[in-house]
This record gives sequence, C-alpha cells and structure tokens, in this order.
Amino acid sequence: MKKYSEMTKEELEALKIELSTKYKEYQAKDLKLNMARGKPCVEQLNLSMEMMDVLGSDDDLTCDDGTDCRNYGVLDGVHEAKVLLADMMEVSVDNVIIYGNSSLNVMYDTIARSMTHGVMGSTPWCKLDKVKFLCPVPGYDRHFKITEYFGIEMINIPMTPDGPDMDMVERLVSEDESIKGIWCVPKYSNPQGYSYSAETVRRFAALEPKANDFRIYWDNAYTVHHLYDDDQDELIEILEECKKAGNPDMVYKFASTSKISFPGSGVSVLASSLNNLADIKKQLSVQTIGHDKVNQLRHVRFFRDIAGIKAHMKRHADILRPKFEAVLEILERELGGLGIGEWTKPKGGYFISFDSLDGCAKDIVARCKKAGVEMTGAGATYPYGKDPHDSNIRIAPSYPSIGDLITAAELFTLCVKLSSIEKLLSK
Amino acid sequence: MKKYSEMTKEELEALKIELSTKYKEYQAKDLKLNMARGKPCVEQLNLSMEMMDVLGSDDDLTCDDGTDCRNYGVLDGVHEAKVLLADMMEVSVDNVIIYGNSSLNVMYDTIARSMTHGVMGSTPWCKLDKVKFLCPVPGYDRHFKITEYFGIEMINIPMTPDGPDMDMVERLVSEDESIKGIWCVPKYSNPQGYSYSAETVRRFAALEPKANDFRIYWDNAYTVHHLYDDDQDELIEILEECKKAGNPDMVYKFASTSKISFPGSGVSVLASSLNNLADIKKQLSVQTIGHDKVNQLRHVRFFRDIAGIKAHMKRHADILRPKFEAVLEILERELGGLGIGEWTKPKGGYFISFDSLDGCAKDIVARCKKAGVEMTGAGATYPYGKDPHDSNIRIAPSYPSIGDLITAAELFTLCVKLSSIEKLLSK
Repeated sequence: MKKYSEMTKEELEALKIELSTKYKEYQAKDLKLNMARGKPCVEQLNLSMEMMDVLGSDDDLTCDDGTDCRNYGVLDGVHEAKVLLADMMEVSVDNVIIYGNSSLNVMYDTIARSMTHGVMGSTPWCKLDKVKFLCPVPGYDRHFKITEYFGIEMINIPMTPDGPDMDMVERLVSEDESIKGIWCVPKYSNPQGYSYSAETVRRFAALEPKANDFRIYWDNAYTVHHLYDDDQDELIEILEECKKAGNPDMVYKFASTSKISFPGSGVSVLASSLNNLADIKKQLSVQTIGHDKVNQLRHVRFFRDIAGIKAHMKRHADILRPKFEAVLEILERELGGLGIGEWTKPKGGYFISFDSLDGCAKDIVARCKKAGVEMTGAGATYPYGKDPHDSNIRIAPSYPSIGDLITAAELFTLCVKLSSIEKLLSK
Repeated sequence: MKKYSEMTKEELEALKIELSTKYKEYQAKDLKLNMARGKPCVEQLNLSMEMMDVLGSDDDLTCDDGTDCRNYGVLDGVHEAKVLLADMMEVSVDNVIIYGNSSLNVMYDTIARSMTHGVMGSTPWCKLDKVKFLCPVPGYDRHFKITEYFGIEMINIPMTPDGPDMDMVERLVSEDESIKGIWCVPKYSNPQGYSYSAETVRRFAALEPKANDFRIYWDNAYTVHHLYDDDQDELIEILEECKKAGNPDMVYKFASTSKISFPGSGVSVLASSLNNLADIKKQLSVQTIGHDKVNQLRHVRFFRDIAGIKAHMKRHADILRPKFEAVLEILERELGGLGIGEWTKPKGGYFISFDSLDGCAKDIVARCKKAGVEMTGAGATYPYGKDPHDSNIRIAPSYPSIGDLITAAELFTLCVKLSSIEKLLSK
C-alpha cells in the first residue's frame, strides 16, 4: 500500500477522479444513515422489554424497608436501588444518591449549584471573576456545553492512551486557584475508548489543587460497557484512591443505566464522600421531594443485582461487538497504510475516535453529510467546538444496522480519501 | 355556646382541668397519626395501579409520530403527552414543555436559571445586589424554601378569599425593580383552599412591573383537584389573560400529575409564552437530552385524554371528600362559636387552613405532637417559617384513614381549646 504523501500529483489527480465517481454513486443512493450519536439500537432496547412487566397492577410496590414507592418521599433513593447502583459504582451504599433519568442533568445541577452556592462552603462561583475547567481532549461535547453555558473557561488537556496528560493537570491545578474542576470519562472514554491507567487514577487522587473547591468530575458512563468477555479494561476505584491519598472530598462520580436499560427512562447515580453528599442534600431537599422511586424499584426487580447487570451487558456486547468490528475492519481495509488517518480500537464504550490529516475533519463530515451519512459534527469533541487541528471525528457505530453501518463506514473512508487528496494537492 | 373570651377566669380554670384530663387520656393511647403533609392515601394510590399494566413487554412503545420512547431524544415531551397536559393546563399544545416527575424541581430550576442567566436576556439575578419575591401568605412552604435558598428576600402579601391583596401587589411591583416574581397557588390555594377571582387574575395579567424580568410563578397544582361534582371553583386562564393585557411573557404556569397518578412517579409540565419557552429550551438542551418518555407514554395510555383525567379525579374526590367533611364537622362541632379559631372550607385541593388566637399556633402543634399527632410545623406557611401572628396551622386530611383522622382532628380541637385557655388566662 502506497502512502498518499508519497504519491505524485498525477497519481493523486487520477485517484481523485476515480474516487469522485464512486462518491457520486453513493450520492445517487439517496442514503439516510446516522453515525452521529451514541444511541443504542432497537435490538439493544428490546433486551430490556421485560422490565415493562416486573411491576404490574398485582405487584406490591413496597420496598424492603416498607416504603410505598408510589408515594412522596425518600430524597436519596430507595435502599435496594442504592445497593444495586453502589455495586455498579464500586462504592459503599452510603456514598450514593439515586437521581432521575439523566446523569447529564446531575452533572449540570452540580455545576449550577457550585455557581450559586459554591462547594462545601466555598465562594459561589458566580461571585468570582474567573472560573476555569480542565477538559481532556478529545472529549464529550455535552460536558463542554455545560461549562460553556455557565461561562466557565475551558482549557484543553491532551489525552493519551493512559488518560489525560497528568503532568499538565498537576501543574495547572496546583498553580491556578480559578481551576475548579476537570471533566473525565475514565473508562472507555468518549470518544477514544481509552481507559485511565492505575497510575493516572492515583495521580488524580493525589492532586494538590490550589482551589479547595476543585473537584474531579468523574463521568463513569461506560463502567460495565465492555465489548469482550475476556478482554476488558480495568479501572481502579477513584473514591477509595482519593481517600487513601488524603483527598476524600475531591471527586464526584457519575453514572446511569441509560445505556443499560432504556436511554431516557433509566436511573442515574452520583457517588461521593459523605461530606459532599451532605452538602448536595442541602440543595436537593429544596429542589425536589424525591426522584421516581417506582422506576428505581422497576430496575431493581428487573436486574436484581450487579450480576444481573453484568449478564445483561453481555447481551448488549453481543449486539455491539460485530458493529465495532465491522467499522474497524473497513477502516483497516480501506485506510490502513495510507497515512491519511489514525483511529482507536476500543474494547468497550460507544465510540471509535478517528484522526484525519490536519484540516480535513470538517470537510470529511460535510462530504459524508452530502451523501446522506450524518456524523458527529467535526469539532464537537473539543471545547467551544474548536478542534485546533480540525482532525478529530467521533464515530458512533451502535445505532445503524450492520448493513447500513458497512455502507456508512465505506462512504466515510471514501470521504477521508477524497478530503486527504485535496489537502495534499493544495499544498 | 359561650365564647371563651366571655368566660370568667374561674370558668376557664375549671374547663382547663376537664380538658387536661381528656388530653392525658389521648396521650395514654400512644397515637402515631399524621396530618402534616399533603400526601395521597393508599386508596388513592390504588386508583392508578392499572397504569402499571398499560405498557408491557408486548406493547409498542412508539409514539404517534414514530418516536421510540425507549431511546434518547425529544427535549420537550412526546406530542401526545403535550396534548394531554396542555388540555389539563387549558393552553395550546405549543405552549407546554413536559418535564420529569416533579413540578417543584421545575420551579427550582426556573429560579436557578434566572439566578445564573437572567430571564430572556436580563441581568442574571446573582449579579444584582437585591432580588425580592412577593409571597402571598399563608402559602406553600416549599415555594418559600426555594426563594430562601437563593437568598431572595420575601415580602408577605396577605391573602383574601379572592386571592392576594392586589392593591399591594400592584403598588409594589410597579415601584420596585428588585421584585422579580410572585408565588401563586391560584386554585384551591395551599393552605387555604381559596381560588383567585376572575378580577384577581385579570389584575395579575394587567400588572405593570418595573422589572422586565418579573414573572408570575403560577403553581396550578390543584387545577383538577375538586372535591365536589356540582360545586367547583373556576379559575380563568392566566396565559390568555396576560396575552390580552399585552403582557404575554409575564407568567410561568406549573402543574404535575403527582396528585393524579403517583406522587414521585408522575409527569410535570410548564406552560408559558413561546418567547419564554425558547429562552428555557436554550438551558434545557444543555441540562438534559430529555425526560422520561416511557413514563409520559404510560400516562397517555392510561388516561387517554383530559376526560380520562377528570373521571379519575372524581374517584380521588370520592376518597378525599369524606375526609375533608369529617374534619370540618369536628371543627364546627368542637370549636364553632367559641371564638378561638377560624378555618376555611375548601371545595378542592389538599388542605384546610386554621387560624387560632394570636400566639397559639406553635403551642397547639407542640401539644398535638406530644399526644402523637404530627401537624405541619406552625410557621411553615410563612416565609422564613415566621408567622407574625403565630396563628396559622395547615391541616392535611388526605393521608390518614377516616378513623385516624377523626381521632386526630378531635385531639387537634382539644389542643386548640387548651392553648386558647392558657392564652386567655395569661392576659
């Protein structure tokens, strides 16, 4: 396979004509495919349909402790739901609060509360001249949208296969009191599918931030979202590490069942130290009387325990694995050795991260769109939507059928080639 | 019946001894009754049990427009849920957003957003030296807790059977730019059960606030919560009136199905002008991907339409009406003509409001508690928990059984008598 950069101008021109013809053939197909968002597919949703049957009109909707789940009350979640989700979070049941359907909403509320009321008695951030967050990049667009919405300045931190550049993180948080947090997706990261190494987690736990209201926003969205039975990433538990390092209050850990049961109708959870939870409950008790306990009970009755969740996730993996493998195979077959792109090979999570030649990502995504394939917007994986190299593209293989996915991935590689040729020709 | 104020000291002393003996008899019973919170009783919860069956594993969880309710998406609610709840709100379907399980949470978020981002472009309230809210009193403690939590100064506005003192409201909002809102429970108000007259609603709609970010926080919590078929309060629709008066953006209207289906597992709704909704959606789209659509669909499949909701509310009324009547009968029988208390006689909602002689409310509630009957804390119906007359007590008849309720209400009247006698003797 000859690298594009080693081709002559004439070779590139010839290839461009050939590929353009192919591209027009795709356009003629009038495709409507979507590799944009990390949405489970219908077959995955079907896995949880029996959850619709576990609570019927003949069932008792009472918890183990006698609470009638139908009525008001119970601010932090019914006990059995706390047990189930604490196990998933790998923390003690005392360290969790169960929320409504969206962990994103919990993260938003966490920032919103810090803006108006500070963190455990600190100055409300809205009273400060400047608040900054560290953002490992590429990362999750919706994290960045929250911090952007609150006018928080975001600082890019390069990602490595072991996690964020910890030298940079350590230096910045120890120097700058206006840095109040860092967004992390520590396992099967969005979009690269990287998992933080034990050393990275320990360095996080041992941070010495200048701001005492600095917190690690640990979005463990993909904690049980493996693709393989026998080859899984392991992440060491951050609450425990923070405690050992003498920083027990430094982390908020988030997760939900959105990609386990039903997205939008799942249960979310926050884990943190007792001090943080007490601080949060002061606000939570003003905000609501309680979250949906019937849905909490429904999840408990359906999954029973963490073993039930893990067994369920294997069924998800059986659906997702062939999709990831199909995309990776096409990327390798079509782009391997050409020197016009690199991509990650995750063992879990929802995404593959693709890096094109500098300055090509927007163009590739636009070409895909013109041929009927929606990708995540180029730049979305960076704060303010600004990818400084215009090179990162997030690929989400979960939603389309295998057939559609193959078409979409092949078109994607075609667009990468065309865009790369134009870039090289323009030099 | 001789008024207590007309009794001699000797008569009062004799009565006190007699009543104290009775009180001790109650104490010996080791009661554990609760007339504190507006919680539906088990029989009311049972009315909605078939809602647990409308979505089973064999059912299609797809909306009319083809949306799979199980998956991500749909920020403002599925269409059929919007139709159902817009009908309940008496507004157009375009004017509503469907939220999660708690309208209190929606109100909290509305204030929180105004603190950090202002209202339709106004200065964020957290940047202002002073923000004030008008609070019709007695009112709903959880409204007051929200404003207190955000450091918003609360100004008491006396309630009348027609609604708040509108002369005072008009004067204050037109004079003071720091007044940004007023909390209203316009129908079967909490705790008095008063409904605002048409004139009151029209005067609200015609307010000329100095602050352009002033909003009416219209918590229509009891919109379909009548006790009688043939004798119901009517409330004219505020959005329409605001529009007519040239103030289309001046109101947020809130409600939920918490006291219709299951408290804590219902669906909440906000109605407002398109301008306000656009402003809100800018924030909402950062906060969440969407609320629980499966639960929205469950409500639609169960109630079908507004007629279904109204028929369902009659069944609630059949359970609640005898409870209200039992309490009112005991109040009349035990306290009528004694001149030591006044109470409201609501035709809907969840509460009866009782006013004792000045300076007695705390004492009455404490006496009830010592004999095993929990009442809403005295003062709770006022901002900062401070009832300037220490006279208002909220009675919540919904939760106890009729038998328990009779016991509790009789004990309550006994405590009113004892407390009043001590107050009169101390003069």
